Amino acid sequence: MNIERLIQTAQEKELPDLVLKNARIVNVFTGEILDGDIAVTDGIIVGTGSYHGKTEVDLQGKYAAPGLVNAHLHVESSMVTPPVYAYEELQWGVTTVITDPHEIANVGGIPALEAMLNASEHCCVNYYIMLPSCVPSTPFEHAGAVLTAKELSALKDHPRVLGLGELMNAVGTVNCDPDVMAKLRAFSDSVIDGHAPMVTGKELNGYVTAGVHTDHESMTFAEAVEKLRCGMAVLVRDGSASKNLEAIIQGVIESGIDTSRMAFCTDDKHLADIRQEGTIRANLRKAVQLGLSPVQAIQMATINAANIYGLKRIGAIACGYRADIVIFDDLEEMTVHDVYKDGTAWKDIPVLNNIPYPSELLHSVHTAPVDESIFEIPEQDTYHVIGIMENQIATRTLTMTHEEVQKGLADGTVRKIAVIERHHARNCHACAYIAGYGLQHGAVGTTVAHDSHNIIVIGDNHADMLKAVEVLQAIQGGYTITADGKELASLPLELGGLMSLKRADEFLPLLDSIIRMAYDRGVNPNIDPFITLSFMALPVIPEIRITDCGLFDVTKFCFIGNEASL
Amino acid sequence: MNIERLIQTAQEKELPDLVLKNARIVNVFTGEILDGDIAVTDGIIVGTGSYHGKTEVDLQGKYAAPGLVNAHLHVESSMVTPPVYAYEELQWGVTTVITDPHEIANVGGIPALEAMLNASEHCCVNYYIMLPSCVPSTPFEHAGAVLTAKELSALKDHPRVLGLGELMNAVGTVNCDPDVMAKLRAFSDSVIDGHAPMVTGKELNGYVTAGVHTDHESMTFAEAVEKLRCGMAVLVRDGSASKNLEAIIQGVIESGIDTSRMAFCTDDKHLADIRQEGTIRANLRKAVQLGLSPVQAIQMATINAANIYGLKRIGAIACGYRADIVIFDDLEEMTVHDVYKDGTAWKDIPVLNNIPYPSELLHSVHTAPVDESIFEIPEQDTYHVIGIMENQIATRTLTMTHEEVQKGLADGTVRKIAVIERHHARNCHACAYIAGYGLQHGAVGTTVAHDSHNIIVIGDNHADMLKAVEVLQAIQGGYTITADGKELASLPLELGGLMSLKRADEFLPLLDSIIRMAYDRGVNPNIDPFITLSFMALPVIPEIRITDCGLFDVTKFCFIGNEASL
Repeated sequence: MNIERLIQTAQEKELPDLVLKNARIVNVFTGEILDGDIAVTDGIIVGTGSYHGKTEVDLQGKYAAPGLVNAHLHVESSMVTPPVYAYEELQWGVTTVITDPHEIANVGGIPALEAMLNASEHCCVNYYIMLPSCVPSTPFEHAGAVLTAKELSALKDHPRVLGLGELMNAVGTVNCDPDVMAKLRAFSDSVIDGHAPMVTGKELNGYVTAGVHTDHESMTFAEAVEKLRCGMAVLVRDGSASKNLEAIIQGVIESGIDTSRMAFCTDDKHLADIRQEGTIRANLRKAVQLGLSPVQAIQMATINAANIYGLKRIGAIACGYRADIVIFDDLEEMTVHDVYKDGTAWKDIPVLNNIPYPSELLHSVHTAPVDESIFEIPEQDTYHVIGIMENQIATRTLTMTHEEVQKGLADGTVRKIAVIERHHARNCHACAYIAGYGLQHGAVGTTVAHDSHNIIVIGDNHADMLKAVEVLQAIQGGYTITADGKELASLPLELGGLMSLKRADEFLPLLDSIIRMAYDRGVNPNIDPFITLSFMALPVIPEIRITDCGLFDVTKFCFIGNEASL
Repeated sequence: MNIERLIQTAQEKELPDLVLKNARIVNVFTGEILDGDIAVTDGIIVGTGSYHGKTEVDLQGKYAAPGLVNAHLHVESSMVTPPVYAYEELQWGVTTVITDPHEIANVGGIPALEAMLNASEHCCVNYYIMLPSCVPSTPFEHAGAVLTAKELSALKDHPRVLGLGELMNAVGTVNCDPDVMAKLRAFSDSVIDGHAPMVTGKELNGYVTAGVHTDHESMTFAEAVEKLRCGMAVLVRDGSASKNLEAIIQGVIESGIDTSRMAFCTDDKHLADIRQEGTIRANLRKAVQLGLSPVQAIQMATINAANIYGLKRIGAIACGYRADIVIFDDLEEMTVHDVYKDGTAWKDIPVLNNIPYPSELLHSVHTAPVDESIFEIPEQDTYHVIGIMENQIATRTLTMTHEEVQKGLADGTVRKIAVIERHHARNCHACAYIAGYGLQHGAVGTTVAHDSHNIIVIGDNHADMLKAVEVLQAIQGGYTITADGKELASLPLELGGLMSLKRADEFLPLLDSIIRMAYDRGVNPNIDPFITLSFMALPVIPEIRITDCGLFDVTKFCFIGNEASL
């Protein structure tokens, strides 16, 4: 960095590269909105006030805020690669993302993390990584990798690694599980993200004392406040599925509580939703429309997140800060007029999408030989059946007689669901009945199946279910729909079976098309054909799930019925 | 650290070591005051709420706040060693100090910094160091050392070194002086303290863009706000001499500006003043009495300072934070009831004062051979005379005729002042006339002479002035008063000629006694006999000073009159 040039241009002894004239500048330090110009040299803000520059852009009184920070998210949920995702964020004013590559780590372990770090090197936003702390998520399934404290430590000093990702194993933490303790010790000088939905009282004290800094799972204001009081930073989440912002921000407004330890995040937001309204910009708009002061909301979306994660020279329009700036037409609708990243307008920034990925990550589907017999379910008097609940990812355990199941299979209210290990050809698989999915005929399958991302397939007959497994093997991961022995449609997600290598423009119509086909074939319109399916394998969300090891009772934390052997 | 034990006791599965019962706990994160107990294990806060402990202390509704942070100070100004100083701070609720050992570095260079780091290892407060950036302060004098970017870098990674100390060379910074640039580059990833009194506009932008993070020199609210807007953190100073708090805090209250980037400091505060009212506790009290909310003031005095300097696990009463706690009887007078450091009550903490210091630092006075001739001033028609101003450290340049000087010498209004290099026996010395000091007869001398700390002596006759120099050599630095060829009183400051090795209880009466003697001998009652003297050699404060190189015109930045050669 040419400090001399920055200092010279700050004093206008030389002209700055770029001056954004006539802005209303949101000052996140003083909480003011001040009229002025913003001078930028070599991608760094060198001053505000009255400036002339080599290039001048007249903002005509529009609002200039620091580039937004998305404080916690999983890029994999977008199903596009880091550079493509980053470009979508950028257009909506986000210039910094803090990501937890938890999903791809479950597929590819340390090499996958290295590939994500490499890919994100070429992103058009500041791209930080929290190292996934819980791979695998549970001992009740087979993931592609097991990440130990020692392995994670090797990546700890990477300049864009900020610390340890969300510590979902709250139970293991408060019970001093040795593996968790080893990770806490290894990262005791870094930021450690938490994941503590409804953890409260002394259990919460234990969890926070262990060294956990943040939480993004608060669903109520009371939960958020208890965490703040304990010393946690609270990331207020509004994503595609989990929407906690309204409850928390309403409480903030009513109570007038200090928000300096609060930031915004999306956790999981789908690409189509991002295209529609952005990420943090949508959180901002909602917060302001609820009645939070725009400046306070912008502080949460910028400098607060930077402070929580120790990011330097990010999150403010001030001397020496990166010229990451979002221009809003207004502070009510938060209409994004333009975005500057390191002093360059986003339209002048190309998406780099020709990044090489390691071959293992592009060929990640390895099942043991399978035939239709894996879908056989031994006849019983009664069955535990997974009951899908509309508009949420929780399930309930149904108990159905043999006759009821047969009737359900005939009338389309019951289907078979199977999970097949796909990382190391382990010959582990399980099959069960599921109610509420719909689907008149054929099978739907995917390699996106939280958190271990084995193959999950649902269908009304064994042949089509097997065909779906075969298609997913052939395309090396993705979404597929089969019927009558044929592949009706597929969407390849070549990168680890989770992400497409396509650009967003190309990818979204394909995604839309296969989802529409699933609905056309009778999938319940009040669920997402693929996303709902992908959560059926997550054995930490009540009440009942299926993994490659068997049908799992989440409330009792044990396998039930026809489990396979671990 | 036994994380398991912390987690267990947080959940009361085992009893915490200490529980402070029935406190009103100041929560700096939410801005609330909450009733509850504070549980402490192994010196760490493991929870608040309702707890039982091995030891319990009933606080009976007193206020518990995080231990205070003094964000910028020079321990040398107290004239006692770091462990002794720390103990004085602790009693008044300060548990963290951020010090700039600028004075001792001017005497002893890198070995002196290492000695301070070693001594502060044994302090009863969290003791952090900013590495002095400007040694020597100016090229117009001889200090004991010259500290380059390279030498400073060698200490940068010490765990208690936070960054680069106050960058007094603002002119050199905005003019891209290569030495300053080298230091800025070396510390670009650390905190860099500023020193920018009245620097404003684009010059300030240049200074901040250079990478300077803090400033403690603001004298008005307007000055403070401009610095905050630029991105600087503002340390609000109230010390023995410089009192900026009232002006700034009044502005804060009137404007309602965000204070999250503001903290408190004392810069220079004398031991006797600290004994009287503490340091940051006095700032707090004044701020609250001006009308600032107590919680907001406590945030400034704790978590804000910790955030500004990136201190982890300091500045809050929350899970996992150090159990550094101050108990106040009330939040108006801020009467300190008790102080806990790492969970131990301050009365149970011993002062460690048997720390070995390097011999060079205990024998730091090395003058070239001197005789009375060095006090000769060639006869001139007119002289530039240093005019002392009462109750401030600025001086004015008087022009006096030979006759006026002679008359002044006779009636006691004019005296001679001399500075003699004392670090490397360089044979550099200068002598001039000074008005307004008083002193009927004899000489007053000291090795405390900002910032190079050469010998400075004032007197009415050459013999006593020489005697004072000889005494200072003999006692290896300190304060002395001589008359009629005799040493009337001396106060040894053995450590670098700046600090006494004594405990505060022993030291203060001696200090008091020698100051009283100086007044008894006719020193102007509206100045401090030694402190005023010690500032006469500082060639950066207007209008006229004297260094070992000559009489210096600060307004024109050049030597005048009878200067010696550099």
